[in-house]
Amino acid sequence: MTDQPTAPSPPMFGTLAVIGPGLIGSSILRRARRDGTIAARLVACDIDPAVRQRVAELGIADRVEADPLRAAADADCVILCVPVGAIASVGARILPAMKPGAILSEVGSTKQSIIAAIAPALRPDIPFVPTHPMAGTEYSGPDAGFATLFDDRWCLLTPLEDTDPAATARIETMWHHLGARTRVMDPAHHDRVCAIVSHLPHLLAFTICGTADDLADETRSEVLDFAASGFRDFTRIAASDPVMWRDIFLNNREALLEMLARFMEDAQAMARAIRWGDEDFIVDRIERGRRIRRSLIENRQA
Amino acid sequence: MTDQPTAPSPPMFGTLAVIGPGLIGSSILRRARRDGTIAARLVACDIDPAVRQRVAELGIADRVEADPLRAAADADCVILCVPVGAIASVGARILPAMKPGAILSEVGSTKQSIIAAIAPALRPDIPFVPTHPMAGTEYSGPDAGFATLFDDRWCLLTPLEDTDPAATARIETMWHHLGARTRVMDPAHHDRVCAIVSHLPHLLAFTICGTADDLADETRSEVLDFAASGFRDFTRIAASDPVMWRDIFLNNREALLEMLARFMEDAQAMARAIRWGDEDFIVDRIERGRRIRRSLIENRQA
Ligand SMILES: NC(=O)c1ccc[n+]([C@@H]2O[C@H](COP(=O)([O-])OP(=O)(O)OC[C@H]3O[C@@H](n4cnc5c(N)ncnc54)[C@H](OP(=O)(O)O)[C@@H]3O)[C@@H](O)[C@H]2O)c1
Ligand SMILES: NC(=O)c1ccc[n+]([C@@H]2O[C@H](COP(=O)([O-])OP(=O)(O)OC[C@H]3O[C@@H](n4cnc5c(N)ncnc54)[C@H](OP(=O)(O)O)[C@@H]3O)[C@@H](O)[C@H]2O)c1
Repeated sequence: MTDQPTAPSPPMFGTLAVIGPGLIGSSILRRARRDGTIAARLVACDIDPAVRQRVAELGIADRVEADPLRAAADADCVILCVPVGAIASVGARILPAMKPGAILSEVGSTKQSIIAAIAPALRPDIPFVPTHPMAGTEYSGPDAGFATLFDDRWCLLTPLEDTDPAATARIETMWHHLGARTRVMDPAHHDRVCAIVSHLPHLLAFTICGTADDLADETRSEVLDFAASGFRDFTRIAASDPVMWRDIFLNNREALLEMLARFMEDAQAMARAIRWGDEDFIVDRIERGRRIRRSLIENRQA
Repeated sequence: MTDQPTAPSPPMFGTLAVIGPGLIGSSILRRARRDGTIAARLVACDIDPAVRQRVAELGIADRVEADPLRAAADADCVILCVPVGAIASVGARILPAMKPGAILSEVGSTKQSIIAAIAPALRPDIPFVPTHPMAGTEYSGPDAGFATLFDDRWCLLTPLEDTDPAATARIETMWHHLGARTRVMDPAHHDRVCAIVSHLPHLLAFTICGTADDLADETRSEVLDFAASGFRDFTRIAASDPVMWRDIFLNNREALLEMLARFMEDAQAMARAIRWGDEDFIVDRIERGRRIRRSLIENRQA
């Protein structure tokens, strides 16, 4: 028996277009360029000339376009990587220009409101596969991306009921090439899970920074001097991009407000226990945090 | 001119006793042992025979005592490193056994309630210097400590009005030998600053873990699977020791409840802005978080 040299399999897509080569978009481009298995040609599109020039300098796309219609026209797959509030409108603009059979995808951090807003513009011959890669940093823009951003992170896919399963499967395979693990779930369920694991923590982090900022001037400077590990972790979260988070909060309004309401009830209960010295209650709450932490470590996500 | 070999200066204290060789106490012992400039002899005291045996095995004390009275009797400086709720009672027990002129110190994370509780037991011939080293990890016990824990961290000192300034200065020097930067402040001010930079963040972290734990079973397992960076940072905070945090919450009740009330108002305002789509308000809050973060980086505490 001899080993047959296997011919390298051709890339998944002829042309892949990334609209919005920021942290997420440029990370996709970098990995696709390094990997070679995702697309034969890479197109990046940005409205800002300075960003286009930077993307050209970085050499992470074969073509850089200003006009999303031109970027989308010959693509076999288009991924919208713009802020959540712009995804549906950019998608609606490019859909009429897309090739029949091409796949439209996006990477927004919320799902239901994007799907509802883009629905009227969808075409039966263009499968739409919403995704949410659960990876990121506190930085943004084309220089913030890196090829390994998605390694071993989850990418959640929330196809519509009538999305062609073959298209969902291709996008899933693409995310495996990008380094991620994937899970398909219902968009409403996605929004609830992300409200508790990501959106609410960010809301609390932004809020506590504001609360600290409101303290008298002297205390504020000492807040900065003595920020213990507790507050430090909070501000790391709170350093993320304002537009992105504004969009996420407004687009996942319902699930987020529900989780915040539950959280506020729980915080009130904790305040009551502290006021009345209910030691058992306090220790029980602290123990639950440790339990969740242990499970996280066992799940190797910590 | 010739260089005169300088004789090594003698250690600050003859005997230093650490009551409670846990994370903080064993870190003091390790650094003092490594450094040699703090004390000629190190004594550790713990009520638990297993901890005593472990401390002896680690070789971080010259003598290991079960009885705090025996540990304190010949010490030139005693540092209470037990949980906040036990500091005043252990202090009151050993004070009558201490040598005149020896210094009593402690490392509790809150200050006013400890000072109030120990006040009736204080002796005019034993200066009392409360401190709070702002360093820690999520682990506890003698194996959790390490000699560099305090390097470049703040240690806050909150001497009483009638504490001998020379004793405060010696404890300050000791903390410099332990690697820390020091600042002297009023106990009430200490409690307010720590309520916002450390105690409230921990309270929120414990609470959100509980909120997540209350969600339906299916969502809970996905909370664990998809814990994005946001929730991960929270659970790191939330993994700390239950007894320590129970004591801190109960002992800094007033400042903590005030900060929590301010925070809840701010969170309600954020909820309202999200409900009514007040984009400017949301972006303003997010920007403030970024500003605080930037200041932290400039202060090199991040
Ligand atoms: N960062 C994360 O942690 C993370 C994680 C998962 C998913 N996401 C999602 O990924 C998407 C992109 O986030 P990112 O972190 O990569 O953001 P980013 O670095 O700020 O990049 C956003 C990109 O979108 C472009 N853009 C902004 N507003 C636009 C508009 N109105 N029309 C067209 N293009 C516009 C930007 O162009 P200019 O530079 O020219 O403004 C930039 O190229 C968002 O939907 C976000 O929810 C982010
Ligand atoms: N960890 C931090 O982040 C941090 C930071 C700054 C200040 N502090 C303060 O430092 C002190 C110690 O914290 P730690 O983190 O070092 O805790 P730790 O590792 O749990 O050590 C606590 C020590 O106190 C002993 N102890 C517990 N209950 C006692 C009691 N009722 N009577 C006598 N001894 C008792 C323990 O002995 P056994 O092992 O026998 O129970 C152990 O040796 C606390 O006051 C805390 O507020 C902690």
